[in-house]
Order: sequence, then C-alpha cells, then structure tokens
Amino acid sequence: MKITVLSGGVGGARFTRGLLAHLGPEADVTVIANTGDDMWLHGVRVCPDLDTLMYTLGGGVHEEQGWGRRDESRRTSDDLAAYGLGWEWFTLGDLDLATHLARTELLRAGLPLSEVTRRLCERWQPGVRLLPASDDEVETHVATADGFIHFEEWWVRHRASVPAQGFVQVGLEGSAAAPGVLAALIDADVVVLPPSNPVVSIGTILSLPGVRDALRSCAGPVVGVSPIVGGAPVRGMADACLDAIGVETTALAVAEHYGLRADGGILDAWLVDTADADVVDPLRSTGWVASATDTLMVDVPATARIAASALELVRSRL
Amino acid sequence: MKITVLSGGVGGARFTRGLLAHLGPEADVTVIANTGDDMWLHGVRVCPDLDTLMYTLGGGVHEEQGWGRRDESRRTSDDLAAYGLGWEWFTLGDLDLATHLARTELLRAGLPLSEVTRRLCERWQPGVRLLPASDDEVETHVATADGFIHFEEWWVRHRASVPAQGFVQVGLEGSAAAPGVLAALIDADVVVLPPSNPVVSIGTILSLPGVRDALRSCAGPVVGVSPIVGGAPVRGMADACLDAIGVETTALAVAEHYGLRADGGILDAWLVDTADADVVDPLRSTGWVASATDTLMVDVPATARIAASALELVRSRL
Repeated sequence: MKITVLSGGVGGARFTRGLLAHLGPEADVTVIANTGDDMWLHGVRVCPDLDTLMYTLGGGVHEEQGWGRRDESRRTSDDLAAYGLGWEWFTLGDLDLATHLARTELLRAGLPLSEVTRRLCERWQPGVRLLPASDDEVETHVATADGFIHFEEWWVRHRASVPAQGFVQVGLEGSAAAPGVLAALIDADVVVLPPSNPVVSIGTILSLPGVRDALRSCAGPVVGVSPIVGGAPVRGMADACLDAIGVETTALAVAEHYGLRADGGILDAWLVDTADADVVDPLRSTGWVASATDTLMVDVPATARIAASALELVRSRL
Repeated sequence: MKITVLSGGVGGARFTRGLLAHLGPEADVTVIANTGDDMWLHGVRVCPDLDTLMYTLGGGVHEEQGWGRRDESRRTSDDLAAYGLGWEWFTLGDLDLATHLARTELLRAGLPLSEVTRRLCERWQPGVRLLPASDDEVETHVATADGFIHFEEWWVRHRASVPAQGFVQVGLEGSAAAPGVLAALIDADVVVLPPSNPVVSIGTILSLPGVRDALRSCAGPVVGVSPIVGGAPVRGMADACLDAIGVETTALAVAEHYGLRADGGILDAWLVDTADADVVDPLRSTGWVASATDTLMVDVPATARIAASALELVRSRL
C-alpha cells in the first residue's frame, strides 16, 4: 500500500513516525514536506520542516523539544551574537548547523533541493521517501501592520503575537512542485494529512501549481487528522494562522476549509478528537467520512493508534 | 609615523602584535592581508589570514596553535563528517564558524570584503586598520603532477608534501587591490614585510595590479624580515613554495627574490637572523641596508624587539 503524507514540521513528523510504527517494515511511505518556512540565514540554507522530519524519523531529534538535534549545543550561535549580526533570536545549533552546511554545499554545487534531501537522507535513513514540496525557493512571508516579515521571524521571534493580516508565498509564480510530488499524490493508494498547520504547512504545499489537481486525481482516498482539539491547536499557534485567513479554530471549520473532494475540496475523510465528537454527525450528513478518537500524540504507540484509526476510516476504499 | 605591513597568517600576525607592543598606543598601522588562501567551503567564505590577524591582534587566538580561536571545539565539523561531504580534513571550529557565517551573511548582502572586514573588526578591535589585499576572489591554486588543487588543500591536507610545480592565482585577471591598499603603500612612512611566506603570502599580494608600483612609489623605506633562518623556514613549509618557483631556501636568496628597490625590486632593507649574519656584508656590498638580530618570535616582548630592530634598520630614512 503506497501512502503519501503532506507534512509540516513537528506534528507531521511525529504523526509519520507513528504511521511507520503502525505499518511496520513493509511501509511504502512518501512524505511531501512544506518548504515555505525555508530561508537563507548567514548564507546557509535552513529547511526547518525537512530537518524536523529527517531528525524525527532518523532517530536524531531532540525529543522534548520536537525539533532540532538531541545533545545540541549553541557555541557557534552564541559567538555569532558577538558580531551583532543576523537573527540573534534564531539559534543555529552546532549539530543542526552541520546539516545546513552540508545542504548549502550541495545547493551551491547546483543540485536541486530534492536531490540534496535524498543525499542528506542517506545519513538519516528516515524510512520514507522524503520530498521537498518544491525545489524552488517559495518562502512564506507574513503581512503585518508594519509590513511583510519572513514566516520564521513572525513565528519564532514574535511567537505569532503580532497580528497577521495574511500570508504570501514569495516566489510562487513560476514555481513548480518538486519532481515526484505530483506523481506521489496521483499514484497513492491513500493520502494522509497529519495534524499539521492547515494554513502555513499544508496550505503552503496545496498552493503549489498542480498539487490540488493531483489530489483530486488520486484514485485512493484522502484522509486528514484534525490539528484542532476542543477549539485550540494541539501544538503551535495555528489559531493565529487560521484567524488571519478568516477560518474559525474548530475541527469543523478546518474540515470545511479543506473541503470535501466531491465538492471540489481535497479531503474524503476527517478524523477528529473525542473532544470534538459532536462534529462527526454533521460532517457525515454532508457526505464526509468521519469519526472521533483520542488524537493526542503522547508517545509513539499512541500515535501509531491514531494513524491506524485514520487508515481504518477509509479502509473500505483501500 | 604611518606604518604599513604586508602580511600572511601566523607569522605576520605575531610580528604585527610585536610591532604594536613596540609602538604603544600611538601606533598608526595598516595591515594588508593576503587573501589568496580564501575559499568557499560548505557555502561559507573562509579567509584564513584575515581571521588569524583578527584573532591574534584582537586577543582571541589559540596561542599554541597560532591560528583559530582559543577554547575552540569542533562539534559542527565532526557532525558534518557524518554526511561524508566536503573537506573532512579541514576543520571548521565552532567559534571560527561564527566568523565565517557573519562574513558570509555580509558578503551575500552585497558588501565588499574590505567593508565586511571593517565590520568584523568592530568586534575584535585589532588596533590596526586591517585591509584585505583584494575585494575580488583571487585564489591561489597549486599545480601538481595530478592537476591543480586549492592552496589550502595542498597546505593543510597534503602538508605541502605533494611536489608543487607552481602556483596560479585564479581570478587575478581583471582583479584589483582593495580600496585603500595602494594608498596605504604609497603614503606609508615605512612599509614592513614581516617573516611571512614570500611566495604564497607576500608574493600573492605583490602580484595584484598596482601593488609593486605602489611600493616603488612609496617615499618611505621598505624593510623586510627574513622568514628563513639557517636555511629553513622559521615556521610552515615555505621551502616547498620556494622550491616550486626555483628560489633557494636561504635568507640571501629570498632577499634577492624580492630585489632591491634601486634595482627594480621592492625592498630597501633586510633583517636576517644572527644565524645568517654572514649574508649581511654581501648584501651591504650590493646596496642593501642589512643587519642581523635574533629573529625568533618566541613571545611578544621578543617580537617587539625584532620589530624595533626592523624599524631601527631604516631609521635614517624615517
């Protein structure tokens, strides 16, 4: 069974780790990672979501933090601050920096990000085919009252506390999905949307040319796991992102934002938390496949059960 | 008294530190640093001689090693090796890397290396005006039997043990000395050549357009300190470089290689070690100002005395 996952960072990476635990060694999983958070910082290319996926699936992640490397240090970053340059609030961990330097060397040698990612994964062996959403530099910027800032500045420096008026993807025009991305959606037996940020993670992937059409062309079902539990994001500050695009922070509103494939949207099925069990019937009455389960990814076995529930939801179509 | 120094890395930096100790707080010293060893490595710009000068004069150098930062670590470099990329034999120290990242950020922002260096020196306060020889990327490559390799690969990886057939400066055509370099030579009250490598450090600076002419135009004297003591380089592998260009590894041969200004060369005076006192008379008989002293830079006070001896040698013309 070929499974394709659209993923942001921490939430998507943890979900995918659970999915792999559920599937076992025969898993055939492709992960399409959001690259809208990527940036050039001090001359090196930083790809937060790709790195979180590599480290989480490759066994190197800082478990409590959810991103970055375990046993990390910040000698370079602390010393860099003495120059008074750059983003002092954005720590480039010493080990993480090795990934950025390796990536930058290969990019500067002319390799596309998808090929660079394949090479970096030779070290991490994430157990999935990891694809960047795009080889092009399409970066999410945030419109604020004071102008546009890079998404990472809004997210990390301001903790999403500066009101966002919207998001723009700089470089979207003329960009393309990376090689393999559209085929991985069209040919999948099932596509899964983990509880990643629906606006700046999944939404960013969806906006790339051809991605929505590929999802609609997929013969297999598309199932999503709600990132909203009881009216709040499970993790992160998705509510601030949803506010900016005028979507309520509820499991139902996010489902309707994605939309039902039969009605021109991208999903067939929606798995919500038991705290939101009341939305299951309304969804079913409008043509959705839906159910509720405990969606808190407290550990790998619990996450494996959530992934199993998502697949179970569309089993009749597999 | 305006003093201009042409410098390579360790030897030139230590000499300049001694010169500053001799001159005291009123020193007005410009250092023109060799940039032929510079390179792009993993996407960041490494400038070995500029860094050695900044760290040595700014109080941050690894004293025993002579280059790099004190209290250095190599977490990033060690982790980078796990990707199997790049120059595994070239360690980018974690603290040193902060300098490379700061430099790269400013270069990528479009600033010339001379302005970048000025900004980095705001942190290090080296007590001199530190100028890169050129803002252009003019890199020394070594011709070997197996083709050309970057100077740093020959020097650091092969320890100069692969026979060099010659040196080429890639990018020399169309390049220029950095802003301020020629003026610092023409307007100097005295120009000093420390015991740096005469081929790949001083020689590289001398080959930049206008530098030799500027030295010849200088109204003040030009005095050099021999890097060769008793037929061997004081430090490093200058003999391998001299061999490649057909110059004997002797204090006399290096003086003749530089040449007397009166005869179209670049020097007026040559300070040799007491071990080479026998070359003083032959030099004097051919028009040189010359003398011998203990030139081993064992500590800062000893180095200050060597610098004082060099200035004393041309005192009648100051």
